[in-house]
Amino acid sequence: MSIPQAHSLPANTKLTTISTNRCFDGEQRYYCHQSDATKTAMTFSIYLPDEALAGHLCPAILYLSGLTCNADNVTHKAHFQQKCSELGMIFIAPDTSPRSSDEQDVPNDERYFVGQGASYYVDATQAPWSDNFNMQSYIADELYDLLRTEFGIASIGIMGHSMGGHGALLLGFTFPSKFVSVSALSPVCAASESAWGQAAFTEYFGDDKEKWQASDAAHTIEAVGQQYTSILVDQGAADEFLADGQLQTPKLQQACAKAGQPLTLRYQAGHDHSYYFIQSVIEDHIEHHWRMAQLS
Amino acid sequence: MSIPQAHSLPANTKLTTISTNRCFDGEQRYYCHQSDATKTAMTFSIYLPDEALAGHLCPAILYLSGLTCNADNVTHKAHFQQKCSELGMIFIAPDTSPRSSDEQDVPNDERYFVGQGASYYVDATQAPWSDNFNMQSYIADELYDLLRTEFGIASIGIMGHSMGGHGALLLGFTFPSKFVSVSALSPVCAASESAWGQAAFTEYFGDDKEKWQASDAAHTIEAVGQQYTSILVDQGAADEFLADGQLQTPKLQQACAKAGQPLTLRYQAGHDHSYYFIQSVIEDHIEHHWRMAQLS
Repeated sequence: MSIPQAHSLPANTKLTTISTNRCFDGEQRYYCHQSDATKTAMTFSIYLPDEALAGHLCPAILYLSGLTCNADNVTHKAHFQQKCSELGMIFIAPDTSPRSSDEQDVPNDERYFVGQGASYYVDATQAPWSDNFNMQSYIADELYDLLRTEFGIASIGIMGHSMGGHGALLLGFTFPSKFVSVSALSPVCAASESAWGQAAFTEYFGDDKEKWQASDAAHTIEAVGQQYTSILVDQGAADEFLADGQLQTPKLQQACAKAGQPLTLRYQAGHDHSYYFIQSVIEDHIEHHWRMAQLS
Repeated sequence: MSIPQAHSLPANTKLTTISTNRCFDGEQRYYCHQSDATKTAMTFSIYLPDEALAGHLCPAILYLSGLTCNADNVTHKAHFQQKCSELGMIFIAPDTSPRSSDEQDVPNDERYFVGQGASYYVDATQAPWSDNFNMQSYIADELYDLLRTEFGIASIGIMGHSMGGHGALLLGFTFPSKFVSVSALSPVCAASESAWGQAAFTEYFGDDKEKWQASDAAHTIEAVGQQYTSILVDQGAADEFLADGQLQTPKLQQACAKAGQPLTLRYQAGHDHSYYFIQSVIEDHIEHHWRMAQLS
């Protein structure tokens, strides 16, 4: 089989290519661009199957990563490329927060669960975060529009892991007209009731817990009701963060029940919170998003 | 399905467990041990499918990594676990050289292609390397015996990437009674004719090129003749190291022809030297080793 010519970005592209590697029947690429929402350079990875390289419209998955990660973790360790190649799906992995560079003084925090690598995909309203930590606007507006302008995307589903699972549920139910499907791996289901999330929300929104509710995934699902035919969530049954209350998985179950939102929730025996777990179940998630895209 | 009880190491085990993570239907583990051959602590990763955890004998693949790598690269990025889980195969990834620790003064080199991370899987005869850089003895004798003592291994095939592809071809044809199958990804086929290999062999063996021949994969294959029903080699057709003469792939083809050794050599269009290439073809290699193990 001949390899399709490289997908051409629009002439006025806002993207700078960092790398391109052939992977299965497609290309794994990295791009960076200057973001208006975060006022920083932002990097993302994108897997383009040959169908997309040849100019066909393809369904896409937007994957939000967890605490401490950047685009590399899922791109190197989750092994989504084979299934995306097989189905002809695009897979996009943005960063988890704005980052500092020499010119930029993006706020950070010594804790791993607040600051760089820990945006919670919200628009912060408190200093010093509110200048740059506008990741909800970045993901759901700026990057979303940029992807649809620059690549041949038929539809976008959203998924994520841990803090990124919170992000996928939150953005999926806050912007249901933008996403055709939602799934999550080991999500932080009720950030406002998790020690990690409480620390972050206190920084980003202040102490008034009323203001946290619109950024709590379980609360949002309960508030907006059913939006999707079904959502898929996988959770390692031996996950230490499930045991210590960071994930609050039963709160997701309760919220979906109240919302009438069909939820497939699978506790996977023996599995933990790592990318070894993610790679073990991610093909089912890619197929979930593929099926939902066919219905959209 | 219930998860098998953890595989029990022998009571007098020489291994220290570093980590255990459930992955597909099996466990990804890391171990370290004190090596007599290298006089250092050595680390390796091992994937044990549930069949092995339950005490059944399973075929195994010993995977040798390339320059600058340790066990992490292939374990995180090559995506062998899914196919090994499906087939019930064990997959072992040792380090590429001895490493320094606080107590040990293992020689290093400022170049990435000599010293730590670049052993070439040979027993060095020159100072300062000869004290520790005995990776042929480590892999083919010490680790080989240790693996067969500590785990339920039915047979061992050997494969590798780049410098590790050289190692797999070299050790496979030097010790054909130990290995039931051989395959390689982007191998350094004739190290003594590659600038990388020449730099390393000069350090490890001295200037006398006659002494290099027993550590050159193509020369060894030609010298010992056919040893395997067939061997499988995949090479990225867009690999920059193929273009610049580091890999000397035609030398492998010539050696196999002279030796009467059946060789399946596939140049994969568009693919480079990276783990994106490795993950794109590794399932075929695992299946190759699986089929050869059934015949053994």
